[in-house]
Amino acid sequence: MLADLPTPCVTVDAGVLDRNLRTMAASAAARGLALRPHAKTHKCVEIARRQIELGAAGLTVATISEAEVFADAGIRDLFIAYPVWPSPQRAARLRALAARVALRVGVDSAESAEALARAVPGLEILVEVDSGHHRSGVAPAEAGGIAAEAQKAGLEVRGVFTFPGHAYGPGRSGRVTEEEAAALTGAAGTVTALGLDAGVRSGGSTPTAALTDSASLTEMRPGVYVFGDAQQVELGTCGWDEVALTVTSTVVSRSRRKVIVDAGSKVLGADRQTWATGFGRLLDHPDARITALSEHHATVMFPEGAPLPRLGEILRVVPNHVCATVNLADELVVVSAGEPVGRWAVAARNANT
Amino acid sequence: MLADLPTPCVTVDAGVLDRNLRTMAASAAARGLALRPHAKTHKCVEIARRQIELGAAGLTVATISEAEVFADAGIRDLFIAYPVWPSPQRAARLRALAARVALRVGVDSAESAEALARAVPGLEILVEVDSGHHRSGVAPAEAGGIAAEAQKAGLEVRGVFTFPGHAYGPGRSGRVTEEEAAALTGAAGTVTALGLDAGVRSGGSTPTAALTDSASLTEMRPGVYVFGDAQQVELGTCGWDEVALTVTSTVVSRSRRKVIVDAGSKVLGADRQTWATGFGRLLDHPDARITALSEHHATVMFPEGAPLPRLGEILRVVPNHVCATVNLADELVVVSAGEPVGRWAVAARNANT
Repeated sequence: MLADLPTPCVTVDAGVLDRNLRTMAASAAARGLALRPHAKTHKCVEIARRQIELGAAGLTVATISEAEVFADAGIRDLFIAYPVWPSPQRAARLRALAARVALRVGVDSAESAEALARAVPGLEILVEVDSGHHRSGVAPAEAGGIAAEAQKAGLEVRGVFTFPGHAYGPGRSGRVTEEEAAALTGAAGTVTALGLDAGVRSGGSTPTAALTDSASLTEMRPGVYVFGDAQQVELGTCGWDEVALTVTSTVVSRSRRKVIVDAGSKVLGADRQTWATGFGRLLDHPDARITALSEHHATVMFPEGAPLPRLGEILRVVPNHVCATVNLADELVVVSAGEPVGRWAVAARNANT
Repeated sequence: MLADLPTPCVTVDAGVLDRNLRTMAASAAARGLALRPHAKTHKCVEIARRQIELGAAGLTVATISEAEVFADAGIRDLFIAYPVWPSPQRAARLRALAARVALRVGVDSAESAEALARAVPGLEILVEVDSGHHRSGVAPAEAGGIAAEAQKAGLEVRGVFTFPGHAYGPGRSGRVTEEEAAALTGAAGTVTALGLDAGVRSGGSTPTAALTDSASLTEMRPGVYVFGDAQQVELGTCGWDEVALTVTSTVVSRSRRKVIVDAGSKVLGADRQTWATGFGRLLDHPDARITALSEHHATVMFPEGAPLPRLGEILRVVPNHVCATVNLADELVVVSAGEPVGRWAVAARNANT
């Protein structure tokens, strides 16, 4: 019984998850876009294999250690969507990975291209472009220059990529999808103008995935869509019925309009965008708000007059940012028709290096 | 060599840590206060044993599973500073714990007192009081009533406790320490007025620890003081030379005034109080600010004209909230005179149940 599991407990509804996986796979296929899901969200071998089975071109990862986990699990095509700096211990691991899987990494400077070429001659790369998120990546106009330096250094340029992270805000996904398309198209133009390969134009995030157009992009890399989370619900990117991951928690304290449950930041993560209504949501009480979060306490406020859950009651918390929640858990409890049916190891938990 | 370790890497300076432990132990002893450090911060058996060796009365923990880890490690006196709700699987574990260590837990309702008494007859409890943080706990005036219900149900009342979490804000520690003292004194008065034991008046946090007075409190439970963190530095509670834990990270991207390092929210935690200057600090660059944090990227801005770290350079990041950082790591690398000398398992990582 689900109610017999110690709380807090990270659970995944197998039916909702599989529907999310199939819907995104079909949607990408219908538009002629390659789907390369970001595995940082789930970090689970079982989900990775299902994504490939449903037609994903390969996986995206953020780190060499995530790539190692999924290579060990038999995934043969991996893109490290990150400006990898090949320090000596990383160089040896990159060489070992490139020898056993189809590997691509991100590059955003001539200096890192040269260092990567020394570490792994002939490594395939995509030039990272800043489409407005202003994290790593170069301006679209500079992509060709970086590509030329990379090719000259001995890397194999395959195209350009971006992460449109600035789509994480209410009402922004339409405009940001256009900015992403313009940035990748512009960047690819500067690469092909130099006679280099810009066959891959890779972008995408869960908020922009439904709007991405194959006229501009060839590939998209959403991650969060597998589970959904409170951020996606509040952005309008997913519905409550698409939320596959929740944290079961127990009511431990109770006063007039407030209950405290035992799911805090050490299981949910402390992520909170400025526009979020709180530190997560309750799946079965959409009017409740998580107004404060400590390490082992979530403070949940209910509307005036609403019936308050009783002490000991189990509530299902939808985390704000599911990637953080998964990375805190050792395993996910798989639930079907409301009952636990298995456990998946979070195989790439803490795979940060 | 420290520089040979893969980044990001959570490191602890053994010398700074031990000085922090000795300073707090001496300060509590000088004031006649029992020190019962909160082990949620370090989650390490090695540090727990050193705290006891330096005179701690016992340890504070937040969960039954943390208590189990430290009981297994030989700690004989544990307080679960939490309103424990004894669901069936928790009741059995509480009974097992109470049979092998001196155990106390928190209570903030008659209903939980009755449930606890059924689960573990004769269990020692402290009544949780709200001193202004407005999380769990009852108003001071209600403490006696809860204590009477608990004693009637068959628990052993030993006193009152509070967590003055509202001290986490600039300039608040003085006022909050006074509120904490008043709440505990008032609550204890309502307990003794009914002829019950209020011998323990337990409070304290790292921001209030230096101000706590044995006229009002008998015991304090700071946690973060062992390592320090950016929040404590920005609150003025600890100096840079008291920061024992840092996350070594590598510069992976670089532009005009900005570098990106590979320590993101999946190693630092995403905690950010509204008054914080950013998502952490750099130990060796106090003028730099971490203006954005993704899962594997920290965006670090340097002042106009300041020399920018080079690609591949190692930077030491001070997390905002060290409890979150430790709970993300499997082990801490112990450093002495700048070189790694050992590793400590984060034995109670993910001990949330």
